[in-house]
Amino acid sequence: MIRSHESGTLRGADAGTTVTLAGWVARRRDHGGVIFVDLRDASGVVQVVFREEMEAAHALRNEYCVLVTGDVRARPAGNENTDLPTGEVEVVATGLEVLSEAAPLPLPIDDGEAASDDVRYRYRYLDLRRSGPHKAMKLRSRANQIARNLLAERDFVEVETPTLTRSTPEGARDFLVPVRLQPGTWYALPQSPQLFKQLLMVGGLERYYQIARCYRDEGFRADRQPEFTQLDIEMSFVTQDDIIELGESIVRALWSDLAGHEISGAIPHLTWHDAMARYGSDKPDLRYSVELTELTEYLRGTEFRVFAGAIDAGGYVGAVVMPGGAAQTRKELDGWQDWAKARGAKGLAYVVLDAETGEARGPVAKNLSEAHLAGLADAVGAKPGDAVFFVASTDRRGAQELLGAARVEIAKRANLVDENAWAFCWIVDAPMFEPTDPEAGGTGGGAKGWTAVHHPFTSPNRDWIDRFEEAPGEALAYAYDIVCNGNEIGGGSVRIHRGDVQRRVFDMLGITAEDAADKFGFLLEAFKYGPPPHAGIAFGWDRICMLLSGADSIREVIAFPKTGGGYDPLTGAPTAITAEQRAEAGVDAKPKAPAPASADVKVPVERSK
Amino acid sequence: MIRSHESGTLRGADAGTTVTLAGWVARRRDHGGVIFVDLRDASGVVQVVFREEMEAAHALRNEYCVLVTGDVRARPAGNENTDLPTGEVEVVATGLEVLSEAAPLPLPIDDGEAASDDVRYRYRYLDLRRSGPHKAMKLRSRANQIARNLLAERDFVEVETPTLTRSTPEGARDFLVPVRLQPGTWYALPQSPQLFKQLLMVGGLERYYQIARCYRDEGFRADRQPEFTQLDIEMSFVTQDDIIELGESIVRALWSDLAGHEISGAIPHLTWHDAMARYGSDKPDLRYSVELTELTEYLRGTEFRVFAGAIDAGGYVGAVVMPGGAAQTRKELDGWQDWAKARGAKGLAYVVLDAETGEARGPVAKNLSEAHLAGLADAVGAKPGDAVFFVASTDRRGAQELLGAARVEIAKRANLVDENAWAFCWIVDAPMFEPTDPEAGGTGGGAKGWTAVHHPFTSPNRDWIDRFEEAPGEALAYAYDIVCNGNEIGGGSVRIHRGDVQRRVFDMLGITAEDAADKFGFLLEAFKYGPPPHAGIAFGWDRICMLLSGADSIREVIAFPKTGGGYDPLTGAPTAITAEQRAEAGVDAKPKAPAPASADVKVPVERSK
Repeated sequence: MIRSHESGTLRGADAGTTVTLAGWVARRRDHGGVIFVDLRDASGVVQVVFREEMEAAHALRNEYCVLVTGDVRARPAGNENTDLPTGEVEVVATGLEVLSEAAPLPLPIDDGEAASDDVRYRYRYLDLRRSGPHKAMKLRSRANQIARNLLAERDFVEVETPTLTRSTPEGARDFLVPVRLQPGTWYALPQSPQLFKQLLMVGGLERYYQIARCYRDEGFRADRQPEFTQLDIEMSFVTQDDIIELGESIVRALWSDLAGHEISGAIPHLTWHDAMARYGSDKPDLRYSVELTELTEYLRGTEFRVFAGAIDAGGYVGAVVMPGGAAQTRKELDGWQDWAKARGAKGLAYVVLDAETGEARGPVAKNLSEAHLAGLADAVGAKPGDAVFFVASTDRRGAQELLGAARVEIAKRANLVDENAWAFCWIVDAPMFEPTDPEAGGTGGGAKGWTAVHHPFTSPNRDWIDRFEEAPGEALAYAYDIVCNGNEIGGGSVRIHRGDVQRRVFDMLGITAEDAADKFGFLLEAFKYGPPPHAGIAFGWDRICMLLSGADSIREVIAFPKTGGGYDPLTGAPTAITAEQRAEAGVDAKPKAPAPASADVKVPVERSK
Repeated sequence: MIRSHESGTLRGADAGTTVTLAGWVARRRDHGGVIFVDLRDASGVVQVVFREEMEAAHALRNEYCVLVTGDVRARPAGNENTDLPTGEVEVVATGLEVLSEAAPLPLPIDDGEAASDDVRYRYRYLDLRRSGPHKAMKLRSRANQIARNLLAERDFVEVETPTLTRSTPEGARDFLVPVRLQPGTWYALPQSPQLFKQLLMVGGLERYYQIARCYRDEGFRADRQPEFTQLDIEMSFVTQDDIIELGESIVRALWSDLAGHEISGAIPHLTWHDAMARYGSDKPDLRYSVELTELTEYLRGTEFRVFAGAIDAGGYVGAVVMPGGAAQTRKELDGWQDWAKARGAKGLAYVVLDAETGEARGPVAKNLSEAHLAGLADAVGAKPGDAVFFVASTDRRGAQELLGAARVEIAKRANLVDENAWAFCWIVDAPMFEPTDPEAGGTGGGAKGWTAVHHPFTSPNRDWIDRFEEAPGEALAYAYDIVCNGNEIGGGSVRIHRGDVQRRVFDMLGITAEDAADKFGFLLEAFKYGPPPHAGIAFGWDRICMLLSGADSIREVIAFPKTGGGYDPLTGAPTAITAEQRAEAGVDAKPKAPAPASADVKVPVERSK
């Protein structure tokens, strides 16, 4: 090392020591010839004093990289800086070497000042000198360590699975890679190690994990990246409870160490149907207690056309209460209509309950009978001064999801979220199948009109494994998600290991034997040779690190993130390629064998959504 | 868990316990109605006894996956199996459930029996049930853990760098990835995290590591894979000695834990020039002591045309001794000529020293003077009964490399290699530049006829940094490789952090400012802002794990390796893609911006060769 000490480690006890420090000029103050420099390295900051005679110090500018020799001394009494761990001392410089100079900075390094994300990520190497981004990188590194230590203690084997693998034409699109040595053929980058981790279980590995890079060539929503990371786990000879216990241990260890939060008691389990009924979401934010109320029975017989239509058609009417919502202005209440329309709904029916009298007012109130109005507050658990929003639809799930979204928005507008709270839950008993939705981008399919909610290898639970055909829409899976503050942070399932069950599930999904062989024939082949019962989970590692670091975007916990459309502001990737590169890569070569037939099957991967 | 115990953990002390085990039928023996099954799980094997009345056991076949309940009992005296950790006990089954059946196996799972690599990797999930491959996976996992623990103790930060990054048209070819959202543009998969780790140093991270997946679309030599893994490290404010100390600590920890080998004393340092002179290789195998001898001065004045020609032209004559080589048959000696021709040489001159008299015989002997013959044995350190091989050439390095290859071949043929030995060395003081070789596949280049031996960011050493232009062929770099048993297992360098030095090195390599900006402009831009002195190393992780597990191919330590040409025998990747996939991926779209100009520069990455 060219330095003797790290700047941030110096303390009062070091006074009298001669040190050599290396780091960056974080701040420079000229006090009548004496120059004070905050010298920053990865360990922290210390104040360096250059006396008047050290002329070289006058040339120092922000972010110069320097080597300083000097004597540590206690700061004069009263001059200590209690905000700084090194605040009791300063280093009186006796030597200075400029290791490298810095041009004027395109963004401020000071923590207080902000720069736009575009500038920050273009100059990410400067952004990373700021304490926030620096800490986020360290936190992520520590999160890896915590998870790995826990898994190593439990005898898990870390295995690297391939990232140049077989393409399957699916809805969530694979990135493709042309193969020069076999022109006209392509690898695909995996959306998850799903198939390989199941093969490792067939291989008798029993306890697998990997912090795995995954790839997805999809439209980039705000919080998505074309490459992302998951903590991927699979075990043999286990039940759902074992995976939940393990997953909970990992989450507990992470939050204890990195957020200083001890999760008290067991993380509650909610069935998927309960979560939808009570929160209108399969990833409910439980930091606030607002719940949905179903009013289908309560309002049966109403003459209000909107509600009656849904109820008579076997649909759903539900409501969600906004505490204090009656105090909203007309404009604010109209704003809810715009909010609902932006989500594709026609609007959001509501009544407000007078803060004094509790009397129901508003457009819906006129349409409801005296009796329905009288009992409404009790039925939905509202108090005078609250607002009640209604959704009615023949599509129960769609209606619940709209109310669930309203619930989230209510919490925001009514300021119900305790930003310091952590609320976890497991969502269990998810449905096996959902009806094919032709609008879902072609990912549905299945000759019988059903598609897998998770993936086609997810096992029906004990109650349904022998009879899911009787009521596919009601059949439940051994599938589980873990949710933190309304974010799905992990999810998994027990896998099918019985050939007969797998065939029946494929049949339900309209996947022919030929289709199946084409797509994941190698997995089905493997399952002929004594596959063990197995189950697993994948944690969305970027999102977990984001939550732990208190950031509001996964970009903050990615060293070199991409922005919209997969653009890398730092390197300028992606770029055009030259004709030579194109020719060499074999992009335009004719393949020797025909491509496998395309078909409409959901991609068999496990991943955080 | 559906089991109560792991099979391989049962001991005498467990006798009397009722257990539930889950695993695979490793072997089944029918002794007149009583069936003995070796039940295998990840922990090992235990013998299970099915009494006659357990009829279901008759249906068991090899590799069925089963759940067995039974009572542990001590084996009858004299029936213990001392080869097995569980050999004192057996489990008398009281219950049996077949979890899944196995079809007839395409390869034997028994450790003794061998299958071809093609079959093994096609059915890798069965191959992994064998104890050798199983152990190799566990060893690799443990190697990761050892390295990570050591680095964590030293405050390294693990950072994931992008794998969808910018393409640079280079000699060692990038894999390319079309980007659907920006049709006509492409990412490249990185050959190493080199540029990103240097950016992290500019970002003040100081201590970075990553077990990183890297990609290289090159011809697949026997021991190469299109995707491979390196332990990638970079530090700021350090010298070459610091990186060597760290690298040595990692190697020491790995070999101590996983090979039971304590490396005694410091790993020796050899300069690159010494290694070439003494061993004819920059990755010498030091398990045997045979060395090259330069005879250029000794033979000066010889009338033998072949030697004289090289000497007079300022070239090189050298020799290597094969102990006991005089005992070779004429056919064996002729075989050396074929060996040399297969390497592109004209042949290999030799003399043999009579085992009794020490008299030199053979084709070369006739051409050498009495005096030269008389002193030869002493000059090359040969004894009666040895053979001496000669190479003469105007190309000193080429001649040394041929002798070096002969040295390796001698060790093999003369059985000089102690297969249980471990011999490490560091190769230091590598040259900065080597002459452009137009036959090297266009990777050379540089207007001035020099190309970088490592990469263009490698720093000249203290002696040369201010004057490498004076004698580019002699200038030395702060570049270092670590070698184990003739395998380069890691390599790295101190990087240039001074803009002026970088410009001079680019100039020497014929890289114009425009070229440089085009290729790695973002790194050069970063270096404007106070880059710290930094250095790093990358370990070839596949090769290290291969050596530690005693395997002879890196495929043995890769869960799902590819075979020749990048083919994956398990999934069948790579495959053709459908027209829809092609259209969606934007492969044939016209890019919006023109491609950057191509140029002839060595790829700036650090990697194991």
